[in-house]
Amino acid sequence: MTTIHASCIDELTAALGADQVQTGDDIRRLHGTDSSFHPPALPDAVVFPETVDECLEIVRTCIRHETPMIPFGAGSSLEGHIMALRGGVSIDMTRMNAITRISVEDLDVTVQAGVTRRQLDARLRPEGVFFSVDPGADATLGGMIATGASGTTTVRYGAMRENVLSLLVITPDGELVRTRSRARKSSAGLDLTRLFIGAEGTLGLIVEATLRVHPTPEAMVAAVLSFGAMEDAVSTVTEVAQYGIPVARMELADELTIDMINKHFEFDMPVTPTLFLEFHGGEAEVASQAESVREIAQEHGLQGYEAAADEAERRRLWRARHGAYEATKATQPGCEVLTTDVCVPVSELAASVLEAQEDIAEHRLKAAIVGHVGDGNFHVAVVLDPDRPEELVAAEEFHDRVVRRALARGGTCTGEHGVGYGKSRFLVEEHGEAAVGLMRTIKEALDPHDLFNPGKGAQAA
Amino acid sequence: MTTIHASCIDELTAALGADQVQTGDDIRRLHGTDSSFHPPALPDAVVFPETVDECLEIVRTCIRHETPMIPFGAGSSLEGHIMALRGGVSIDMTRMNAITRISVEDLDVTVQAGVTRRQLDARLRPEGVFFSVDPGADATLGGMIATGASGTTTVRYGAMRENVLSLLVITPDGELVRTRSRARKSSAGLDLTRLFIGAEGTLGLIVEATLRVHPTPEAMVAAVLSFGAMEDAVSTVTEVAQYGIPVARMELADELTIDMINKHFEFDMPVTPTLFLEFHGGEAEVASQAESVREIAQEHGLQGYEAAADEAERRRLWRARHGAYEATKATQPGCEVLTTDVCVPVSELAASVLEAQEDIAEHRLKAAIVGHVGDGNFHVAVVLDPDRPEELVAAEEFHDRVVRRALARGGTCTGEHGVGYGKSRFLVEEHGEAAVGLMRTIKEALDPHDLFNPGKGAQAA
Repeated sequence: MTTIHASCIDELTAALGADQVQTGDDIRRLHGTDSSFHPPALPDAVVFPETVDECLEIVRTCIRHETPMIPFGAGSSLEGHIMALRGGVSIDMTRMNAITRISVEDLDVTVQAGVTRRQLDARLRPEGVFFSVDPGADATLGGMIATGASGTTTVRYGAMRENVLSLLVITPDGELVRTRSRARKSSAGLDLTRLFIGAEGTLGLIVEATLRVHPTPEAMVAAVLSFGAMEDAVSTVTEVAQYGIPVARMELADELTIDMINKHFEFDMPVTPTLFLEFHGGEAEVASQAESVREIAQEHGLQGYEAAADEAERRRLWRARHGAYEATKATQPGCEVLTTDVCVPVSELAASVLEAQEDIAEHRLKAAIVGHVGDGNFHVAVVLDPDRPEELVAAEEFHDRVVRRALARGGTCTGEHGVGYGKSRFLVEEHGEAAVGLMRTIKEALDPHDLFNPGKGAQAA
Repeated sequence: MTTIHASCIDELTAALGADQVQTGDDIRRLHGTDSSFHPPALPDAVVFPETVDECLEIVRTCIRHETPMIPFGAGSSLEGHIMALRGGVSIDMTRMNAITRISVEDLDVTVQAGVTRRQLDARLRPEGVFFSVDPGADATLGGMIATGASGTTTVRYGAMRENVLSLLVITPDGELVRTRSRARKSSAGLDLTRLFIGAEGTLGLIVEATLRVHPTPEAMVAAVLSFGAMEDAVSTVTEVAQYGIPVARMELADELTIDMINKHFEFDMPVTPTLFLEFHGGEAEVASQAESVREIAQEHGLQGYEAAADEAERRRLWRARHGAYEATKATQPGCEVLTTDVCVPVSELAASVLEAQEDIAEHRLKAAIVGHVGDGNFHVAVVLDPDRPEELVAAEEFHDRVVRRALARGGTCTGEHGVGYGKSRFLVEEHGEAAVGLMRTIKEALDPHDLFNPGKGAQAA
């Protein structure tokens, strides 16, 4: 343990007990390791608050000792968000997992930060409502808020920014702040809610959130569309968006991804560029949306069309699509995966994806493409052998090229994974010095001693 | 003219010429008067930039002279946003009125801040797309961004926060900042875009914006539903929201509003509590939505139903609904109107509206109720004789009661009009000292000399 934080940890242990303040190697390793290729960076201790008051006590104690705090949810970050780059205390929010209020009438719910997406889904299902943001991983809601997560349903229902009404946060002053009422809309002062969404834990600790939920659609149908060429799949996406067909999900996978999914999840989809779609609405509406999309796809050389209206089949299909990362890792035991996350205007999507494919071929990378292409967001998952450091160098160089091309096309380096410390090097290039300077000014004003998740986000750029 | 700012204005005149820097009484009065009951507060001069470079020159000159700057759009504010409370320079953005880019493919457009809503609407119509936010007034887009405006279509398409992709702003450092790329989504750093939306000009000057647009629906049908009692109308709203019927607009008007609209716009609607709805989608979808709503309304004592599918009739109807404020002012020549703007969770709407009605009756106010009730937002327009100051006192007391009741029900003092200086007294009560303190910290960090729209928003609380 870094002795510099020992007295802080002693004080926390005296206050909360040994069960809630742990310093064992295994627990620290678990909390200093995310789901990415980034090397671990261990905290000095892991604390497990169970109440808002305990959260307040932890934050105030760390402030007094100038000990860094790193909020921790499910550890499903892909950009090193939870790494304790300067030691300090990992605040594990998973015991703060109560769903404290459900209003079907107002279509909103209040959850503690440690509630996971699947936990919320299971609780809401019998109520006839659902929370729409689905990044695939069983992340905590607090983590999804902190990274500004989105996922497969964003094309229809928006990302976290559009689905969080209000937050309860503890600021670097040690104050408990409710950012906003739970009214559907408000113009009452600065938008503190959105300031904390995507701030990656650098401005405070999120302890509770009030979220929008949506009525469960009368009908939901998924469809898998196979194409002969990537251009055809992407052109279909662009046209569906332009016609304003309100598809609920519209996902792209390349041949390699389909092949890996087939093997890992025992599917037998044609190994071609593929779109996964989902339609929500009344029975007639869903049928009409599906028919419109099929017509558009046929004009772009549709080769195969499989629909899944049955609930179990639909869920199995999306588990497979969401399992692309898992399937990728399974192809090569012990491998690591570097995942890019650029998002470009939809009109630039076809060129961006084709350039990525050419680059993969030219540099002989083992890399698969999936994407939330209705939003212009796609991932390239590059498989790495950790024992061959030159592969990481090549993957990072590829990442740089993918990002530079996206920026030149009016896009962003990260559509949903966040900056962490893995992408901080791109921020000045993306936003310019003045914009990043503004972000730093806000961070310094709110957290002058840089105690909340130091070394992450725009502040690290 | 306040001599303290004379040298700043001289310098601006030397740089831009007399046509672009005006100090006449009439022009100053026009720019120091909004559309509300608030007394005028005149700037020392009005400047009319025509380019981004001129905007930069104006801001940098004012910073050097520590002269306050008040961004000005259409002057349609209802909360004193454009009042020059400490003198200084009104920056009239109306000559910055170019629509600089339209992408039907990406469903986004870039506009200068002085473009008005109707100007954009007219330009987009032949392209088959539309910008959804419609507050009624022909405001500038810059003004709508600054106040975090919303309006009749928010229930389906969201408010400004959901429809602005990126901003070009000049900060109180005199730096030009692009807040974000125009990708559909991004997690690349703090959400500067949303920080400026609703900041009411207190954090900088918005010069350009990239906005989302939507494909024009195949079919649009409006309907007017008359009810015997306010409870019936509001219960219908609540149930439509719960069923997730994606109505494009859902507006409430009370008897007095209908009476005033009938007289001012030559309609002959039944003088009863009334809902104005609009349905967007394919022909079949629109018919099915309308039928579902009608069924729900019939269970709640629907008395009359009139549909308007014809484009001219539909536009005439919405002009009348949006003209409620104008119609209210027309009932009593020379009158002023104080408008409340609370927004509550939808489940609290019926009680809130009924309490407002009882309060109006008890205090014998002349006051009409309209509202964007699909979002839980409603306005009470209180008619005032400016020669009877006791009426303003009574109206302000009523306003206080309406807001206190809304806050007790989990709502906000302003759903869309913003704080200006008319509502700053409510902010601490709504958000608490710590949250308002956070807003002040951000303002002080970005604008330490309080040059941008001083005395407004949360900073004035």
